[in-house]
Amino acid sequence: MSSGTLAGKKIAILAASGVEQVELVQPRDAVRAAGAETVLVSVEGGSQDGRIQAMNSDIELADTFPVDALIGSVSAEDFHALILPGGAVNPDTLRQDEDAVAFVRAFVTSGKPVGAICHAPWTLIEADVVRGRTLTSYPSIRTDLRNAGATVVDEETVTDNGLVTSRSPDDLPAFCAKIVEEFAEGRHET
Amino acid sequence: MSSGTLAGKKIAILAASGVEQVELVQPRDAVRAAGAETVLVSVEGGSQDGRIQAMNSDIELADTFPVDALIGSVSAEDFHALILPGGAVNPDTLRQDEDAVAFVRAFVTSGKPVGAICHAPWTLIEADVVRGRTLTSYPSIRTDLRNAGATVVDEETVTDNGLVTSRSPDDLPAFCAKIVEEFAEGRHET
Repeated sequence: MSSGTLAGKKIAILAASGVEQVELVQPRDAVRAAGAETVLVSVEGGSQDGRIQAMNSDIELADTFPVDALIGSVSAEDFHALILPGGAVNPDTLRQDEDAVAFVRAFVTSGKPVGAICHAPWTLIEADVVRGRTLTSYPSIRTDLRNAGATVVDEETVTDNGLVTSRSPDDLPAFCAKIVEEFAEGRHET
Repeated sequence: MSSGTLAGKKIAILAASGVEQVELVQPRDAVRAAGAETVLVSVEGGSQDGRIQAMNSDIELADTFPVDALIGSVSAEDFHALILPGGAVNPDTLRQDEDAVAFVRAFVTSGKPVGAICHAPWTLIEADVVRGRTLTSYPSIRTDLRNAGATVVDEETVTDNGLVTSRSPDDLPAFCAKIVEEFAEGRHET
């Protein structure tokens, strides 16, 4: 058994090819350092030969990462919390997969903590779980978030009842600290 | 003077790095073949050393293309029509540039014909010109279009008062034929 504030917790990271590499690696390493186990979940349409292609600054190829589980083989009930990294093409792919969208919706509606950074809230729009919530995001998707019923602010991290959001890779130190704190707190009243 | 149905017409193509290469090249070549002159317009934040980086299938690097004019140096009044290619990262960058958004808005509100394919309608959302219009797009952005007030249909090409839209590279033959036809027709009543 690991020690740390997240010991015994199992965290899903949902991502597809196009994911921004630092937004995948740094939050993963932060929750692992606090004792959590992480599972990289992806979708068939956004992975190839069991791996996803990560990017730097959206259009430079970075490394590939092995997928631990495809979306059809897991349930939100298997996990304590969810991390949604950014990178424009990543949520653009995830939001087209009904199972991925239902997986994300199940975390939010059950009050399990979720961390979403950069372009990741596009998938939250598709799950229709931003209505009436306050969050932040990469600047390009703020009109989409407002049109979906969210209140959008421009802050390093925003926490709304277990939903932690940040704007970009520059916010990663604050984002990583905040998700570890919220994930340790656990399920919120919905 | 060129011959053809678009002889004497000047067409702007607005794109940034991340543009889907076939959606840049094929519409450009189609309007040129009909006699038009094309000008590739870009934004500082989405180009480097006067060139934009095109992609295949959003995440594979393709060729680079020389930018003919930066957005600050041109006006919608200089052109007869506008082409907006797709590729997820391209409109994601364009919509963050106020001048690019105003440029797009000026075409639509003045009734000049506009062709937008795949992810390109994100920039139309930012310009708030899709409200009450009927269009199509890449599947991933349809929820964003509906939330912005558009009626979204799933057809090869849709034409709504000079605004021509298509879904993906598969629709390029129909899209290219339709923009040549609409661009020849010219300005629509708004």
